Amino acid sequence: MRILTRFDFVTAIIIFCTLQKGINVNKSESEKKLLSEFSLFKSFLDQSGMDSEGLVNKAMNFSVAIPSWGLGTGGTRFARFPMPGEPRNIIEKLEDASLLNSLIKITPKVSLHFPWDEVRDFSEIIDYALSNQLEFDSVNSNTFQDKKNETNISYKFGSLTHTNSSVRDLAIEHNLQCIDYGLKLGSKSLTLWIPDGSNFPGQMHTSRALDRYLDSTAKIYKHLPEDWFLLLEHKLYEPSFYSTVNNDWGTSYAFSCHLGEKAKCLVDLGHHAPNSNIEGIVGRLLKFKKLGGFHFNDSSYGDDDLDAGSVNPFRLFLIYNELSDAEYCGDLPNDLAYLIDQSHNITDPIESLIYSSLELQRAYIQSQLINRESLYYYQQNNDPLMALEELKKAFRFDVSLILKMARYSLGGEIDPIKAYRDMNYRQKKSEVRKFKNNSSIGIV
Amino acid sequence: MRILTRFDFVTAIIIFCTLQKGINVNKSESEKKLLSEFSLFKSFLDQSGMDSEGLVNKAMNFSVAIPSWGLGTGGTRFARFPMPGEPRNIIEKLEDASLLNSLIKITPKVSLHFPWDEVRDFSEIIDYALSNQLEFDSVNSNTFQDKKNETNISYKFGSLTHTNSSVRDLAIEHNLQCIDYGLKLGSKSLTLWIPDGSNFPGQMHTSRALDRYLDSTAKIYKHLPEDWFLLLEHKLYEPSFYSTVNNDWGTSYAFSCHLGEKAKCLVDLGHHAPNSNIEGIVGRLLKFKKLGGFHFNDSSYGDDDLDAGSVNPFRLFLIYNELSDAEYCGDLPNDLAYLIDQSHNITDPIESLIYSSLELQRAYIQSQLINRESLYYYQQNNDPLMALEELKKAFRFDVSLILKMARYSLGGEIDPIKAYRDMNYRQKKSEVRKFKNNSSIGIV
Amino acid sequence: MRILTRFDFVTAIIIFCTLQKGINVNKSESEKKLLSEFSLFKSFLDQSGMDSEGLVNKAMNFSVAIPSWGLGTGGTRFARFPMPGEPRNIIEKLEDASLLNSLIKITPKVSLHFPWDEVRDFSEIIDYALSNQLEFDSVNSNTFQDKKNETNISYKFGSLTHTNSSVRDLAIEHNLQCIDYGLKLGSKSLTLWIPDGSNFPGQMHTSRALDRYLDSTAKIYKHLPEDWFLLLEHKLYEPSFYSTVNNDWGTSYAFSCHLGEKAKCLVDLGHHAPNSNIEGIVGRLLKFKKLGGFHFNDSSYGDDDLDAGSVNPFRLFLIYNELSDAEYCGDLPNDLAYLIDQSHNITDPIESLIYSSLELQRAYIQSQLINRESLYYYQQNNDPLMALEELKKAFRFDVSLILKMARYSLGGEIDPIKAYRDMNYRQKKSEVRKFKNNSSIGIV
Amino acid sequence: MRILTRFDFVTAIIIFCTLQKGINVNKSESEKKLLSEFSLFKSFLDQSGMDSEGLVNKAMNFSVAIPSWGLGTGGTRFARFPMPGEPRNIIEKLEDASLLNSLIKITPKVSLHFPWDEVRDFSEIIDYALSNQLEFDSVNSNTFQDKKNETNISYKFGSLTHTNSSVRDLAIEHNLQCIDYGLKLGSKSLTLWIPDGSNFPGQMHTSRALDRYLDSTAKIYKHLPEDWFLLLEHKLYEPSFYSTVNNDWGTSYAFSCHLGEKAKCLVDLGHHAPNSNIEGIVGRLLKFKKLGGFHFNDSSYGDDDLDAGSVNPFRLFLIYNELSDAEYCGDLPNDLAYLIDQSHNITDPIESLIYSSLELQRAYIQSQLINRESLYYYQQNNDPLMALEELKKAFRFDVSLILKMARYSLGGEIDPIKAYRDMNYRQKKSEVRKFKNNSSIGIV
Repeated sequence: MRILTRFDFVTAIIIFCTLQKGINVNKSESEKKLLSEFSLFKSFLDQSGMDSEGLVNKAMNFSVAIPSWGLGTGGTRFARFPMPGEPRNIIEKLEDASLLNSLIKITPKVSLHFPWDEVRDFSEIIDYALSNQLEFDSVNSNTFQDKKNETNISYKFGSLTHTNSSVRDLAIEHNLQCIDYGLKLGSKSLTLWIPDGSNFPGQMHTSRALDRYLDSTAKIYKHLPEDWFLLLEHKLYEPSFYSTVNNDWGTSYAFSCHLGEKAKCLVDLGHHAPNSNIEGIVGRLLKFKKLGGFHFNDSSYGDDDLDAGSVNPFRLFLIYNELSDAEYCGDLPNDLAYLIDQSHNITDPIESLIYSSLELQRAYIQSQLINRESLYYYQQNNDPLMALEELKKAFRFDVSLILKMARYSLGGEIDPIKAYRDMNYRQKKSEVRKFKNNSSIGIV
Repeated sequence: MRILTRFDFVTAIIIFCTLQKGINVNKSESEKKLLSEFSLFKSFLDQSGMDSEGLVNKAMNFSVAIPSWGLGTGGTRFARFPMPGEPRNIIEKLEDASLLNSLIKITPKVSLHFPWDEVRDFSEIIDYALSNQLEFDSVNSNTFQDKKNETNISYKFGSLTHTNSSVRDLAIEHNLQCIDYGLKLGSKSLTLWIPDGSNFPGQMHTSRALDRYLDSTAKIYKHLPEDWFLLLEHKLYEPSFYSTVNNDWGTSYAFSCHLGEKAKCLVDLGHHAPNSNIEGIVGRLLKFKKLGGFHFNDSSYGDDDLDAGSVNPFRLFLIYNELSDAEYCGDLPNDLAYLIDQSHNITDPIESLIYSSLELQRAYIQSQLINRESLYYYQQNNDPLMALEELKKAFRFDVSLILKMARYSLGGEIDPIKAYRDMNYRQKKSEVRKFKNNSSIGIV
Repeated sequence: MRILTRFDFVTAIIIFCTLQKGINVNKSESEKKLLSEFSLFKSFLDQSGMDSEGLVNKAMNFSVAIPSWGLGTGGTRFARFPMPGEPRNIIEKLEDASLLNSLIKITPKVSLHFPWDEVRDFSEIIDYALSNQLEFDSVNSNTFQDKKNETNISYKFGSLTHTNSSVRDLAIEHNLQCIDYGLKLGSKSLTLWIPDGSNFPGQMHTSRALDRYLDSTAKIYKHLPEDWFLLLEHKLYEPSFYSTVNNDWGTSYAFSCHLGEKAKCLVDLGHHAPNSNIEGIVGRLLKFKKLGGFHFNDSSYGDDDLDAGSVNPFRLFLIYNELSDAEYCGDLPNDLAYLIDQSHNITDPIESLIYSSLELQRAYIQSQLINRESLYYYQQNNDPLMALEELKKAFRFDVSLILKMARYSLGGEIDPIKAYRDMNYRQKKSEVRKFKNNSSIGIV
Repeated sequence: MRILTRFDFVTAIIIFCTLQKGINVNKSESEKKLLSEFSLFKSFLDQSGMDSEGLVNKAMNFSVAIPSWGLGTGGTRFARFPMPGEPRNIIEKLEDASLLNSLIKITPKVSLHFPWDEVRDFSEIIDYALSNQLEFDSVNSNTFQDKKNETNISYKFGSLTHTNSSVRDLAIEHNLQCIDYGLKLGSKSLTLWIPDGSNFPGQMHTSRALDRYLDSTAKIYKHLPEDWFLLLEHKLYEPSFYSTVNNDWGTSYAFSCHLGEKAKCLVDLGHHAPNSNIEGIVGRLLKFKKLGGFHFNDSSYGDDDLDAGSVNPFRLFLIYNELSDAEYCGDLPNDLAYLIDQSHNITDPIESLIYSSLELQRAYIQSQLINRESLYYYQQNNDPLMALEELKKAFRFDVSLILKMARYSLGGEIDPIKAYRDMNYRQKKSEVRKFKNNSSIGIV
């Protein structure tokens, strides 16, 4: 592959003139504009030795799963500000997910969360999904909240690592049930995030808590279907504020090694200590064969819920750089779980999911532009400035047209946020999706 | 004052023998034990040139205000695990505060929060407080949550700095009302913490938001009673996750300078960037005459709600060191607001408030033990190890007996947590304080 | 201004065909290529309603000062790995600065550091600079190192805030001398960074140290020429590891308010606590009329010396967004000091200075592309996603051609790093710049 | 063991009177004072059910190794401020270490660092050590600095993970030589800290660098003597500022698992991301059988060189709590390497080493006071406040007399810093230890 030179227009124009006639005149103005622009862009890319069709194909094959819980308005412990027309149940969430996917065509999978997603009839939601071209991704258990009216057993002091075996058993049982649900849904993994930890020095015995984690997860692991993964998700803190049982990638990695091959580590971009080099963690887990998947989002402080790529797009690109490098080297597992995990507190969830899905797709395609052989050359010869410039050239390259063309080719919207806004979807939904009491005053 | 030598027992015993007869035989075993122990301890302190009576007096005069919102079980955005017998309203909260104060005698003031503390009849709660030896501290406004059924105006995108003047006006109006409430209650300050900020780069215009903060607070400041303070509370982040209007002590300080002499800065121990030297911030605000008060708690990460002194007791001591130094130099304002601001998610709020109040009192008394002239000598002569040792000697000194003696002298409990547990208070209260629906499933 | 649409090529081509003939055939291949590319690019920009000439002008008027100390190979406390051909003295540094500026044409100023820059004859270096089109920027004092053979007075325990007045006097005297030097050089500001602080709790009396800072700086301030600024530079930590006297922007701001109008705050991008929102600090200082200038670099941890824009280019863009916004609103001071402050440990300093200067210019020009009225509209109407997209559109836009065209127009190199490498400069210099002992084993 | 009640003086006195006569009248005043105080203290401890003799024995058996590099004045990259009388070579360092150990009697081991410790004749230093009751601890290699006059091969871009195999070979060779040296000295481990990493995104290929680490260390591991450990030391950053090969405990753990049983992880207290729970890391490594030892120090920011226990003594206590808990449970490896790793920039190294060694001993003895069965009870029953109080009771207990008595029993000084100051050691040494050029101006 030649090193990219981006505005080699003179020759581009000549090629363009030849291609220009291929643009169908029966299309809408925006389609014509896209095709015309892309045609020139393609000729320019091809001229530069870049495989424009390959890139569009990559963009078309890109996908990321949507969390069912991300389809409603999120909130902080201080408040939740609901918007009209929010989905009230799993079917309405699938309805929104289906709309989302029809707009951008790269989010065909939804990840469910139990018991948040109250399913009375699995065949109903499976049918609904099928008829809306949706599938189900990793299934998520929830042992950080007590069910209403279950007063005898509480997760107040932990779940899978609680000192009391009856609490642990309840949490294990719930996870086994989630596997059952996932089997029905066609999921291939169980994502395990537990809140267990402590708020006071001395509260929790470190090594005994680690033992209980391993004991409990071993019981879940034993029931894992042959072709499934158990995805262990670590988090530095919150809701535990002094210590957390699975608090960092090292702990998660050690757990996954003890459990076995089907146990992998899931990386949530917002779950690390300040100053952590997240792309390095991804590279380490790839190297040690323990990367299981992602929860994508962005973060500036100790939070984990901002829209992916909104605060630090270069970091996102560097993470995809690790993935694309592994892909290039044949070391990328096929079955990684790519999920978004964000909380949309002040935006319309559908808009934020459009925006952040596209930012992920953008970072992926940009990372595909990196001239790896050239990069390896600079790495091998310790030319850090030129190595950085190889990354920067790809990062600076605006791949919007590739994304648009991929979306268009898949039948999605060229400008999906505009299309969504033009639909007046929330307004319409608010007329049928009525809440008794939709306010939320937080639980500080 | 002599430098402390702590186990000068030989002479102590002689003095003790003389004092021993003063112990009244009609007292309970634990009283006798305390008096006996303290008697020896006192003789030892006096012998070492320390003013034991002065220290007990200091401990007796120490006080910290209790937040009304800290009397109920707190929670995270993931879950709240309520306990039986929690207070359901402001009167029941005052009832708990009164019990708390009767046990430890250093928490005679309660800080109210509006509209959380729904007051129908102010004279009722004032009478209740009076007859229970309680007073009211700083009054807190709340513009981070929408009231139910007020759908037209929302704080979703800010309050005092909202781009829409009608939202700002509502927030200003609410603060003025809080001042009115505070006047009735006998408060002397309004504590102003607002959630305003942004979640996305570009969302908020930095300087315009600062302008709106100054405009809105100037209107509140104008209505401040002559002898009141406006306490500006900064917070690094949460619920805003990209930027916060009043996000650090520097911003808070600049605001307070612009507003005037009655505007001061309130320091919440959990509201700073990682690695911040909080005692240095306290020292700076003291020096620049802008320290207004504290929200005490402890924190390991981005949280702000752990029990004071539980994770880093030396840091708490270093903060009190700044205060005691200012006191020694005659530079400590009389009217600082000392409040606890914690969230008791997994402990009985009354127990945590007992424990953390005593930790604050402990840190204060320890900081009073520092031999300041000796410390100044080492500082002046750049002998850092000896300077540290001056602090460490005071910090290592176990002042439990001084705290106990102060508590006992004030009529409180020698072992207040034990006394509280023996009362079986929650159990009894749970029979009268019944909730319709007391579960909380979080608002992630 | 129309909202940018970047690949409106169809019409662009028509315009291009008209402009094409303007390209002079007597130019080199790379010149022809640039002119040809830019010609099309310009037509496209103009077509999009963007002022391409204005942007090139902005890029041509952009400049950033070079630190004399950044021209030699830097190092860490562990080691320094010198390269052949490094400058040995101030004249050789000016020689390198001159070469640098001839390549990129946006670094016409050099910032000197005393006593690092040993000047025996000021007229010599002034003449040298003049004849090489160089000027001198802010002058920097150094009170963090002892001079050789001055054994009686040491900065070991501080300089301007030392407890001993004779040390303070020495430090003040040195700063006054730096002002004298700066007057000769044509500087307009003194940059004041001091290492003073403590390594142990208790070592330094907080408020007394602040007092001494104000006393000493007041004496310097008094001698400041009429049209000069005193730039106060804060730093979170290092070389003091427990507390630092001027440790954050709030302290720096308070100091500058106490000193007077000519005291301003200098923001070094690497001198903040983890998770600090640096663009917000810039916005605050602009709003409060106390921004004095910058030390540009990048940082991932507690360091402050990486190449600007290398690790987080979006953060750099957000900082320039604040500056360009102030410029747009007429609130940008004319006389800000823009300096690079990096340590080039593993790269050729000239290459790193080329690269990072261009990254700064890039971020500036990108920030000029932001459609401010559109941004304000989204801000006012609380549409955070569209507000972010306004920033992102500008950030995604590859302005490389604008930078190249500006450089070319100023007589610089189209590809300056390539040009520099082709010169074989270091190799040639190593033959004349010989060191007796150029190894460095660190001082851990 | 009874729960501690600390001032059960009344009965204590009776016992004391019996013991009093045992105090020998031929001793010095300070000895008499100590024996008298301890006698009462012991009776009080014994009365409380505490094994005072056991505690003194524990304190007598405590030891920590001294780093040879910590005996000279340290520095930052900005400056080093040497003091008169510093040791100039390894023999003089051993002389100082011997003095140190004679004063406090708990630092009988010195850890050497090659090639910093230039040894011409090993038998000379071994004899010197033997005759001064010194032994040698873990041996440290240095591949972060180039040797003088070895210009062809440089560690500028890494050592064990350099892309060039000849650099890696040199680094491996040096480590094998260090093992040889260690064998002569009687060391039982090689501590491996390497600076390798990158300053720019893209500079280093993540997984290839990890591979090279494993390849190179495997070669070293292969040559490890049967009864030795290879101690892998991670560090978040510095001197590499974008990424580090062995950057966190997870990476170090993964490396140690790949290498084999003799590879263990060394925890330096200052080498973690902000907000890291270091005691939790210690607990994890203990649980996963990979803890190899410690580099003790304290830190507030990104530094790693302050005196142990000076900034956060409770954290140090919590680390020893993990160790003492493992000891109590029979899970503590016998052969952990306990080393101090500090840089004494502004204090006399001998004083700082006295002070911090005693702080470590103090934290250890305090952690031995924890009533573990009581703690387990509260942990098992989820009583976090009482669990914390179990820790706090031990932490508040002033064990100074135990430390003094242990020191006295071993023949050390009751007040070692005073004794050292009274010796006027540096002054005397400065007359024989003369430097040609002892100033250091930093290498920024």
